[in-house]
Amino acid sequence: MAPVRNGRHLFNEIPTGYPVPGKTTVYDGSETIDPDTVPLNGGFIVKTLALSIDPYMRGKMRDSSIKSYTPAYTLGQPLYNFGIGVVVRSDNSQFKAGQHVYGGTFPFQEYFVDTDAGKYRIIENKEGIPWSVYVGAAGMPGQTAYYAWKEYSNGKKGETAFVTSGAGSVGSFVVQLAKLDGLKVIASAGSDEKVEFLKSIGADVAFNYKTTSTSEVLEKEGGIDVYWDNVGGETLDAAIGAAHTNARFIECGMISGYNATEPYGVKNMMQVVSKQLKLYGFIVFALASKYQEEFYRLVPGMIARGELKYTEDVSVGLETVGEAILAVQNGTNKAKKVIKVADA
Amino acid sequence: MAPVRNGRHLFNEIPTGYPVPGKTTVYDGSETIDPDTVPLNGGFIVKTLALSIDPYMRGKMRDSSIKSYTPAYTLGQPLYNFGIGVVVRSDNSQFKAGQHVYGGTFPFQEYFVDTDAGKYRIIENKEGIPWSVYVGAAGMPGQTAYYAWKEYSNGKKGETAFVTSGAGSVGSFVVQLAKLDGLKVIASAGSDEKVEFLKSIGADVAFNYKTTSTSEVLEKEGGIDVYWDNVGGETLDAAIGAAHTNARFIECGMISGYNATEPYGVKNMMQVVSKQLKLYGFIVFALASKYQEEFYRLVPGMIARGELKYTEDVSVGLETVGEAILAVQNGTNKAKKVIKVADA
Repeated sequence: MAPVRNGRHLFNEIPTGYPVPGKTTVYDGSETIDPDTVPLNGGFIVKTLALSIDPYMRGKMRDSSIKSYTPAYTLGQPLYNFGIGVVVRSDNSQFKAGQHVYGGTFPFQEYFVDTDAGKYRIIENKEGIPWSVYVGAAGMPGQTAYYAWKEYSNGKKGETAFVTSGAGSVGSFVVQLAKLDGLKVIASAGSDEKVEFLKSIGADVAFNYKTTSTSEVLEKEGGIDVYWDNVGGETLDAAIGAAHTNARFIECGMISGYNATEPYGVKNMMQVVSKQLKLYGFIVFALASKYQEEFYRLVPGMIARGELKYTEDVSVGLETVGEAILAVQNGTNKAKKVIKVADA
Repeated sequence: MAPVRNGRHLFNEIPTGYPVPGKTTVYDGSETIDPDTVPLNGGFIVKTLALSIDPYMRGKMRDSSIKSYTPAYTLGQPLYNFGIGVVVRSDNSQFKAGQHVYGGTFPFQEYFVDTDAGKYRIIENKEGIPWSVYVGAAGMPGQTAYYAWKEYSNGKKGETAFVTSGAGSVGSFVVQLAKLDGLKVIASAGSDEKVEFLKSIGADVAFNYKTTSTSEVLEKEGGIDVYWDNVGGETLDAAIGAAHTNARFIECGMISGYNATEPYGVKNMMQVVSKQLKLYGFIVFALASKYQEEFYRLVPGMIARGELKYTEDVSVGLETVGEAILAVQNGTNKAKKVIKVADA
């Protein structure tokens, strides 16, 4: 095989506010690779099939001197995130050519060589679901929803859950888990199309937060027992205001603040005491050891049988990464955002 | 026995901002009672010995149409709170004259008749500690500290706890529980005298928050793993900012907001997610069934043996209630505030 293009998408500049496609990150199509002959040094070469675009990536676009739970991206180097690919060649006994592997540090490039097999999980996919779903409903976003709902919701039949970013990859999974546990589900999203999707997956009350007041909906529906927070800020204030005594707040993300230059001050914190609220900030990785095997044993099958529905908003090619990142930050993505890099 | 004065302290007016002695609440010495002849209707008459003054009483001085976890005081009626007294006469088989009883709804008056024995607990006091301690370290404030520290702190040797209102009845107990569990303890209070007291009960680092920056102290000491919050507001922001990953926040009270007309907006909430913080709002009564008997079995003895130290700031007479309430709200009390109503 002759050398082929090895397109990459690079971190180019630290953004202030929203990331700018072509500026914050740039596509580079100048490199080539020969997958058949590139030295493996005891490792393996992977052809990337699909990459996930997630809200938390914004937090990695920072000065590397600022500490956080996840390392900063390196300027001039490819972005990386959850991905799935196929092993082209391998000198490592753990992987064979043709096997599919999933991992959280897939570089945003068409082919890559690695020697650390421990960073990847072999995906057999006996259920035959599309490979891209392993970076969405059957990947990190689905795990985020599944692990934390099981660990923190303590949801009981007859209670009410409120799920923000309900049409996103995490939120839509949470909506369905809450329904499976017998809760009434209120869900919000940022477009009427997403609201329709929320209804189609079983949300009892779905609304467009851009055109309807969150506080008014929560009050009209009689308050909430579980809050799944993907947005923070004013919506968190509204949820605290509408919380019943002993409500559980699953603090998964606060996208309303990721691109803000001034943090929003949450005013209702005194009610955390008076209503005996519990707030659980978490990172999916911290719960993996407890729930990961159960997840892979149960969830791909539930997806294959249609018991858990998902949607994808697919962009094709690494050139589209910048726009995809921005869409996830400003909420113009239609569903779980995936970059399809290759078909097989 | 001839009729004697039955002094009372009444709720007189809903305050805006801090309560005003003689206006928000007033002393009334116009009533009399004959303890020997007053009809009991199958109940019992109690002579009040000591009453507790607590921060949360401010929340009860509101319009009764506003819901909260605790009912509003009734205008024109005596205040009520935790108290201890001695049974003078009883037509109820559960209580005998001379027994001491403790309860959470002691009216602020010298004598009272009640028929509901279920509201009171007989205190035998085999340990011989002062009766007033049963409304402080061996009463609700001590229980607040004990129950929630056991339930939520998950404190481990070598970790660091930060306790606000550290010289108060709850805080000083928490400081000592944290030390017993092997933690390094940082504690704050509002006067140099209180700071000295904090050092005397074992706080490793004690500071006056009015003259020293909380954020600077927490940063210099390397951050915190457990935060005992009695104050909320800016201090909560500082604690979130200084929290280690997986820190536990025990949300006991937010006195900085009780008398504020505009709520403080907590700006660091995004770190609840990134640092995986857990915030536990609670009310002591909700944990009583789990810890109450253990508390009464262990704590009075620990106090009697000097293993748990306490201090009291005693005012004598129901006339002093208004000033005592204000002192607890603005922090000019020196220690656990107690009204001594009678010696025996």
